[in-house]
Amino acid sequence: MARTVFPAEVEELRRSWPTMSRSERVAAFHSLPRAVADDFFLELSSREQAELVVSLPEGERRLWVRLLPPDDVADLIQEAPEEAREGLLNLLGPVTRREVNALLAYEEDAAGGLMNPRFARLRPDMSVDEAISYLRRQSDEVETIYYAYVLAPDQRLLGVLSFRDLFAAARNATVRDLMRTDFVAVPDAMDQEALANLFAKLRLLAIPVVDASSRMEGIVTVDDIVQVVEEEASEDIQKIGGMEALEAPYLEIGFWRMARKRGGWLALLFLGEMLTAAAMSRFEYQIAHAVVLALFVPLIISSGGNSGSQAATLVIRAMAVGEIGLRDWWRVMRRELGAGLVLGGFLALIGAARILIWGAATAAYGGYAGAMALTISLSLIAVVLFGTAAGSMLPFLLRRVGVDPATASTPFIATLVDVSGVLIYFTIAGILLAGRLL
Amino acid sequence: MARTVFPAEVEELRRSWPTMSRSERVAAFHSLPRAVADDFFLELSSREQAELVVSLPEGERRLWVRLLPPDDVADLIQEAPEEAREGLLNLLGPVTRREVNALLAYEEDAAGGLMNPRFARLRPDMSVDEAISYLRRQSDEVETIYYAYVLAPDQRLLGVLSFRDLFAAARNATVRDLMRTDFVAVPDAMDQEALANLFAKLRLLAIPVVDASSRMEGIVTVDDIVQVVEEEASEDIQKIGGMEALEAPYLEIGFWRMARKRGGWLALLFLGEMLTAAAMSRFEYQIAHAVVLALFVPLIISSGGNSGSQAATLVIRAMAVGEIGLRDWWRVMRRELGAGLVLGGFLALIGAARILIWGAATAAYGGYAGAMALTISLSLIAVVLFGTAAGSMLPFLLRRVGVDPATASTPFIATLVDVSGVLIYFTIAGILLAGRLL
Repeated sequence: MARTVFPAEVEELRRSWPTMSRSERVAAFHSLPRAVADDFFLELSSREQAELVVSLPEGERRLWVRLLPPDDVADLIQEAPEEAREGLLNLLGPVTRREVNALLAYEEDAAGGLMNPRFARLRPDMSVDEAISYLRRQSDEVETIYYAYVLAPDQRLLGVLSFRDLFAAARNATVRDLMRTDFVAVPDAMDQEALANLFAKLRLLAIPVVDASSRMEGIVTVDDIVQVVEEEASEDIQKIGGMEALEAPYLEIGFWRMARKRGGWLALLFLGEMLTAAAMSRFEYQIAHAVVLALFVPLIISSGGNSGSQAATLVIRAMAVGEIGLRDWWRVMRRELGAGLVLGGFLALIGAARILIWGAATAAYGGYAGAMALTISLSLIAVVLFGTAAGSMLPFLLRRVGVDPATASTPFIATLVDVSGVLIYFTIAGILLAGRLL
Repeated sequence: MARTVFPAEVEELRRSWPTMSRSERVAAFHSLPRAVADDFFLELSSREQAELVVSLPEGERRLWVRLLPPDDVADLIQEAPEEAREGLLNLLGPVTRREVNALLAYEEDAAGGLMNPRFARLRPDMSVDEAISYLRRQSDEVETIYYAYVLAPDQRLLGVLSFRDLFAAARNATVRDLMRTDFVAVPDAMDQEALANLFAKLRLLAIPVVDASSRMEGIVTVDDIVQVVEEEASEDIQKIGGMEALEAPYLEIGFWRMARKRGGWLALLFLGEMLTAAAMSRFEYQIAHAVVLALFVPLIISSGGNSGSQAATLVIRAMAVGEIGLRDWWRVMRRELGAGLVLGGFLALIGAARILIWGAATAAYGGYAGAMALTISLSLIAVVLFGTAAGSMLPFLLRRVGVDPATASTPFIATLVDVSGVLIYFTIAGILLAGRLL
């Protein structure tokens, strides 16, 4: 369990690994003593393992691929280039190859793709002593002996038993007496995000995965889930930040791949934002007449974008961790309309105070400071209200049509609100300032 | 390990729990059969447990508080109102009270605050048989028997041993022969985010916590870490979205508490955005002269904000999961300057094409479409470059001065870039369009 602490120079190698070329990596890896090389290899990410293995001479590959349990081999193969996969599969023994092939059939981000097919199994009619010595024999082959799964002859999962319960039980008891039948099991197609939320909520160490007929297929252990939770959060954060998820560490991903993942969204947002120019051009006459109106455009539209970003972020995250579902949309809407009124009102007060004080001090606004203050205040309330409503509902809408809610990124909401904000602002100004500034 | 699957009506109670009043909760809780009530109570979050316990009649509290292991009691007491804490502590037995008091001395988000002081301990001179039967006796009192910690008489941690290794070993071996001495241990003050990254990286099930003299204090287990990772990611996401972290589920937090956590940042951003009005007012003459300039303001400044948001999000997340540290700032800066040039150039092409086509089609821009296209293109490159540089460096700066990098929220970056973007844009326009449109 406790991972080897590498000597300082090996830790340094691990740190600089991502920045090294393939041939540098092979040379450095060959220079490690065998025992250290084993641990070092196990410590690499699946992508790094795949890159290293395909860089090694063909004769050496088998050794390293066979060092890994089947779920990790499957991950490695998924990370390897298309043309190398068949060759890597052929390095495995027949049993492992069959297991890995079964795992490769699952989506990488489903429970089936995360599970280890090697789990400790027991029969219900075994005695405690038989069970303990049977687990002892399985010990080398399974992911954990601390949880044992009781199977019917047709592989249906009947019950779950912790080693600890077994250990504390009377010797003449049978597995059937001791096993818990009120266990949680998940279908192999369950999405890894939902699975991670289950682990977080129930604080389990392992969850069995079953097929549609309740036949046991494997277990997912919590140590794999910590990484899943971090990866899912990274994806959400990057999407919220207005780009495609990188799906690789920032310093490891190639420059042009990163630029593509950012450029696509930037260009889309740019096209969207062009509509603000179009919207404003409809009010060119008013702007020419009262330039002061133009000065407040960024202030007003950004307030809507900011409050919308807050609302979208809250809703996206609450959805991701399973706090709210589609059915909660109306509760959220009510809450956000309330928040929009309060927050918009708050900004309206600050904005009005600023204009009235400035107007009195400098005689800007041509004597119409009052009307201008009212225009700005009402616009702020309307734009913030629109922002919170749009920001909170868009994630629901996206999820409803099957798109990841995190796609409602903060820049996306901001752009949406910018265009609408320009229209709201100039419309209110047109009404309130007609015959005065306009 | 496997959590009880509640009957449907209890699952429904669990779901509606957050929306129920205190008296409704007490009534519903009292109506549960005792065995179900136990599991139901254990399933609640620490905050919910605290609320329920202080709502119960005094005579019933002891039972429920004593149901929990010391680390969970400490969490419950931390969530209870100040004035109730002493009373809750007094419900505990003397040993547990001492343990809980020790845990309460740690920061809630440090390793010491997460650890369980009840771990399985062994002496180095024990034989395998002695060790196994000793673990069997400790089984009821410790968090896990699957990892045992080998201590010197002064409580210094000498080695770590998995039950599995013990189980597979020859009976005449001693603990000293079997234990691993190259284990990972963490100091009790280690931040929970760093601890979670360690769990994710090393895929451990438990990590021992030691004090400054290497004396063993407790263990942190991975099942607690999954929640930590989710909470830390939620906090970061909310900060990136431009507000204070809620620190409670969205539907559970009080309306006014939420409004305060959002209103503070909104007001600050609003004040910041006022500077755009001030900046633009310096160019009132140019705007009055060429209203067309004003139309492009939102387009230009939002492009800077969007690219800055992307950069900040990437850097904040990479820092949070430990991919990059302060020392990497120059590598990141080089990358982001490159990205800014490429992405800005890309947007510049789109913008120039739009203006040239529009100018040719409608004779807008008074015959100066070329100069206008150049102005917009150069401004876009400069603003996007500024956005990526500011967005990527601000998290470093914040971390350097000890502030959470996630404070560099996307709205914050957008506001920063808005103000600078106005200045950049009008300065470039002033130079390129002097004598033409201006």
